[in-house]
Amino acid sequence: MNKNYYAVIMAGGVGSRFWPISTQQFPKQFHDILGTGKTLIQQTFNRFDGLIPSENILIATHKKYEDLVLEQLPKIASSQLLLEPIMRNTAPCILYSAFKIYNENPSGIMIVAPSDHTIENEKAFLKNIQTSLNFCSENDILLTLGLKPENPNTGYGYIQFNTSENDIKKVLNFTEKPNLETAIQFIEEGNYLWNSGIFIWSVKSILKTFETHLPEMFALFSKGQNSYNKTSETDFIEANYKVSQNISIDFGILEKASNVFVLPVNFGWNDLGTWGSLHHKLAKDQNQNATIGGKVIYRDSENNIVRTQSGKRVVIQGLNDYIVVENEELILICPKNKEQEIKDIRLDVKNKFGDNFV
Amino acid sequence: MNKNYYAVIMAGGVGSRFWPISTQQFPKQFHDILGTGKTLIQQTFNRFDGLIPSENILIATHKKYEDLVLEQLPKIASSQLLLEPIMRNTAPCILYSAFKIYNENPSGIMIVAPSDHTIENEKAFLKNIQTSLNFCSENDILLTLGLKPENPNTGYGYIQFNTSENDIKKVLNFTEKPNLETAIQFIEEGNYLWNSGIFIWSVKSILKTFETHLPEMFALFSKGQNSYNKTSETDFIEANYKVSQNISIDFGILEKASNVFVLPVNFGWNDLGTWGSLHHKLAKDQNQNATIGGKVIYRDSENNIVRTQSGKRVVIQGLNDYIVVENEELILICPKNKEQEIKDIRLDVKNKFGDNFV
Repeated sequence: MNKNYYAVIMAGGVGSRFWPISTQQFPKQFHDILGTGKTLIQQTFNRFDGLIPSENILIATHKKYEDLVLEQLPKIASSQLLLEPIMRNTAPCILYSAFKIYNENPSGIMIVAPSDHTIENEKAFLKNIQTSLNFCSENDILLTLGLKPENPNTGYGYIQFNTSENDIKKVLNFTEKPNLETAIQFIEEGNYLWNSGIFIWSVKSILKTFETHLPEMFALFSKGQNSYNKTSETDFIEANYKVSQNISIDFGILEKASNVFVLPVNFGWNDLGTWGSLHHKLAKDQNQNATIGGKVIYRDSENNIVRTQSGKRVVIQGLNDYIVVENEELILICPKNKEQEIKDIRLDVKNKFGDNFV
Repeated sequence: MNKNYYAVIMAGGVGSRFWPISTQQFPKQFHDILGTGKTLIQQTFNRFDGLIPSENILIATHKKYEDLVLEQLPKIASSQLLLEPIMRNTAPCILYSAFKIYNENPSGIMIVAPSDHTIENEKAFLKNIQTSLNFCSENDILLTLGLKPENPNTGYGYIQFNTSENDIKKVLNFTEKPNLETAIQFIEEGNYLWNSGIFIWSVKSILKTFETHLPEMFALFSKGQNSYNKTSETDFIEANYKVSQNISIDFGILEKASNVFVLPVNFGWNDLGTWGSLHHKLAKDQNQNATIGGKVIYRDSENNIVRTQSGKRVVIQGLNDYIVVENEELILICPKNKEQEIKDIRLDVKNKFGDNFV
């Protein structure tokens, strides 16, 4: 395995649209959402293990999830954790990991990947990753993996690319969460891809881009150059992370940089961002009902997703297109077409029932 | 208190339309369905206690509920229980109780009342009962209490009466569970009442009517005349009850006898026969949602009844006119207008999940 290859798995999110299964105490990536026997972060780790030296796989997460990560990923040592004392979106976290890798190996090529997506065709995925690593080893560019849009989803970022003969295309434009009309237009135009949130670049390239486009943040994390990979790293991060700008890599870097490219990919991606996308992914009965956990009798009911405690019996009569979720503390019943309101519902629950329920 | 007065509280039903709260192991009458602090059978007992000598209150139930009755009604002695070894509908049970009372007191006047109804105006109820007891002490008749129909409910029995100046009217006809068109017509005609299932008669009158209209059943239970209220009663019932005809008092006696009368009453009766009738009875929020047990956030939801385990939190988004019930083992979600299917659902559950769930 190439010792220059690194992966940074982003595992700090709380997956609030997946509430009430995903909670602050136990977010989505630490659940076996699909019932495969592996949690999402375990699946993500295993996907890279073999291509990337396992000691080069870093996990970026909030410090409160340290124990969960170490428990679920026994191959990961504490030194491979980037523990955020406070959530500051993706840009600071990626800059921190780039500095940490650069400090160890200035020739490092890094993959940044979310911890909570599913990929059906792992072989195709690894081939795309290998292509990307090769390209980024030789070129001073920032690369993202782009997916052919399956529908005018308004929850994703869209990447407009310059059509060319090359496998890897120059990015013209990013549009985050367009309205429906715009999304439909993008799909018709044909040269738009969904942003997968999986990025590949050399640490040299990404550091240079941060220096140009987010100079304050770059300066802040530069101060830690004598601390990364040393015992003082924790203290440095504890003292400085909280003062960093709170911004995503998309807004802070990718939309501004001129050397961004995209590799169109097709490996059966699902971000499991919502209950609806999970429903899409799960095995279903002849009436398109998907069941996780419990045992359900569906009567005159179609197109539901029902997730209960293991062993719980459920009878659904005359209900179509709903999400039904139950755990020890709580039951949620919500139409699938209102799943974007789950964030609001979660706030409502926080206000009315308290922090323990979100 | 008049020592000739007796009450027989019928507590053998399984309340299958109230599944999954009402189960074979723990039927409706033993639940505090309304959250008043008293179970339905306790409320029914208390209603008679004071008017009827408490040693003259008998409880007829299936023998498997013996412990539940004795636990919930500490004033009741084992000798006051009529334990059915097998369910045989109301006629055999009433005949058994009539013989048992006659054996103790041939001048007995008995009230028969279900254990699982609610009555709002207890004062009015007791006044009606007193009127009925007086009338039946003096007349060889069978009396039922009849309620002014509130709507063309097709789940009840309708009593057509002979309009007259008297408070107590002669019954012309019984119609069990008419279709909607007929029920509407009955209400328009004005001389129809709902059958409350509360009956009053002297033991002499009811025994005579059984002898005429159900002679085989009368002969069967006559054989026990030397056993009633003696230690041999249990053995006699165990040996003979199962061979009795299985028929209701309505079909077997009231529809045939010529001396049936009805007292029109108005004491805020609810048979709590279905989730819908419970919804009608409960306190509701401004959107007509009724909650029992848990704590519920209703969002864009109207006219639901939600009954969960105590302390369970529930969020209902975009749901109207549903029954949502949860207990430790099971969740039921069913439209209110499909509540008549709950009996079928229960059978479905029995077949698919097993006897423990019904």
